[in-house]
Amino acid sequence: MQTKPRIAFIGLGIMGLPMAWHLLKAGFPLTVYNRTASRASDLVRAGARQAATPAEAAPGADFVISIVTDGPDVEQVLLGPDGAVHGAQHGAVFIDMSTISPETARNLADRLSLHQIEFLDAPVSGGDVGARNATLTIMAGGKQDVFERARPVFEVLGKRLTHVGPAGAGQVVKACNQVVTAVNLLAVCEALTLAEKNGIDQQTMIHVLAGGASQSWSLENMGPRIAKGDFTPGFMVKLLQKDLNIVLSLARRHGLALPGATLVQRFLEDNVAHGEATEGSQALYKALKRAAE
Amino acid sequence: MQTKPRIAFIGLGIMGLPMAWHLLKAGFPLTVYNRTASRASDLVRAGARQAATPAEAAPGADFVISIVTDGPDVEQVLLGPDGAVHGAQHGAVFIDMSTISPETARNLADRLSLHQIEFLDAPVSGGDVGARNATLTIMAGGKQDVFERARPVFEVLGKRLTHVGPAGAGQVVKACNQVVTAVNLLAVCEALTLAEKNGIDQQTMIHVLAGGASQSWSLENMGPRIAKGDFTPGFMVKLLQKDLNIVLSLARRHGLALPGATLVQRFLEDNVAHGEATEGSQALYKALKRAAE
Repeated sequence: MQTKPRIAFIGLGIMGLPMAWHLLKAGFPLTVYNRTASRASDLVRAGARQAATPAEAAPGADFVISIVTDGPDVEQVLLGPDGAVHGAQHGAVFIDMSTISPETARNLADRLSLHQIEFLDAPVSGGDVGARNATLTIMAGGKQDVFERARPVFEVLGKRLTHVGPAGAGQVVKACNQVVTAVNLLAVCEALTLAEKNGIDQQTMIHVLAGGASQSWSLENMGPRIAKGDFTPGFMVKLLQKDLNIVLSLARRHGLALPGATLVQRFLEDNVAHGEATEGSQALYKALKRAAE
Repeated sequence: MQTKPRIAFIGLGIMGLPMAWHLLKAGFPLTVYNRTASRASDLVRAGARQAATPAEAAPGADFVISIVTDGPDVEQVLLGPDGAVHGAQHGAVFIDMSTISPETARNLADRLSLHQIEFLDAPVSGGDVGARNATLTIMAGGKQDVFERARPVFEVLGKRLTHVGPAGAGQVVKACNQVVTAVNLLAVCEALTLAEKNGIDQQTMIHVLAGGASQSWSLENMGPRIAKGDFTPGFMVKLLQKDLNIVLSLARRHGLALPGATLVQRFLEDNVAHGEATEGSQALYKALKRAAE
């Protein structure tokens, strides 16, 4: 019997925790690290090892997976004083599944290669629901053969697994994804305000539109929440804002305006100014309505 | 055996022609009128009657269906000197399936009621493909019982048939639909430019995004056409422009800004200025790229 590769898993947030569970249940020997150690306690009871630092999680691991909030966090857990690189074996593959800038991803790939460590930037789409149901979409940048080595790991976490290009390419596609997610959400919010002002039942409008050429994931998933006044977070305003900062700075570097994504970013700033940073991104609807008043 | 209601059908354009065929094949006695008479010749060979004016098409019809380009066209064929109202029997139901303003639709309903004629505004979504495959989404405004009388007709033409409210409500929901269609298209165009500038294969990007939270009809149907450089019309720039004029004037009347839809409208103006009025609405991509240069 072939033994499963060993995995070090860094970051047990709303995404990382269910992902780590799937890996453990699939039989991968798992060592976990999280800044708030208590988040790991159920995993440890179920058989995972817990490490006090990323550096202590890495020894013996074939794959080191990180999924944390932002670029500086990734740099810290991989290359900081207690970073995984200091415990990793030569030939280990580091897979960062956070959403960071393509530039940072390429920079990490370069720096890790000096330590004989392979790197994939492999951000995901599908949200907390996708993480829990193991239906994430995974878009990976890096070497093709390294992607193939990591495939058995990805298969446990997601459904649509695509190698999209060299280092950084995964993050570029994730940036494209966030543009569409954000602007589709704006589309839904505008239609909902128009329906409301004209006395049309919002749920009826959503039902009708979902049957035709304006169907979208955002319409079907965010529309009904907004219509019910449910602004609890699946994906927080401040995280979409962070992602759009990455997107817009990438666009600027190429002389692109992305006016739709820019509009959404402005509304999110209004959300934050109104204390809605930790609400769901569908709170965009509230910012749009304030702009109309 | 119950005889089928008689139908007068006005407007054999890219939408109307396949719709009339479905009604004829379903066994409804059909009289057709079209400004360019030759468009009707195959239908006539297959058993439809052809009338020289809308007024001559209407006598004996239980339903008078119109699907033409704009509000003034609808007023002309229904209430003009040769309009259907002059030949219609009392108790006939007029069903306008064009996209016009809710205000015009309500006005038509009022004026027709003076002639003891019922009116439904029943615009559709799903495009020429939906018309050909009889999978249109139909959103109807008017009296509930009149909608129920018309249901057997709608069932031949579409899949999702919804009574959305009183006179004009169908056109309000269609306006919402066009907002989402237009802004979702902008989302796809922005992501495609970002992918291209970063050297990512656009078809790969579309495939990845279609598996997650940025999935939409526009992404899956317009994305691949744009990636192939195919700007032939399913739905023309100038028609989306016309629809957004309706949308934005409706929004202004309620003090709504609809910034996303407004952005799209501006790009479509650029399309028209560049001689692209009769290209498909996906030519928005070209206008967006010009703005970035």
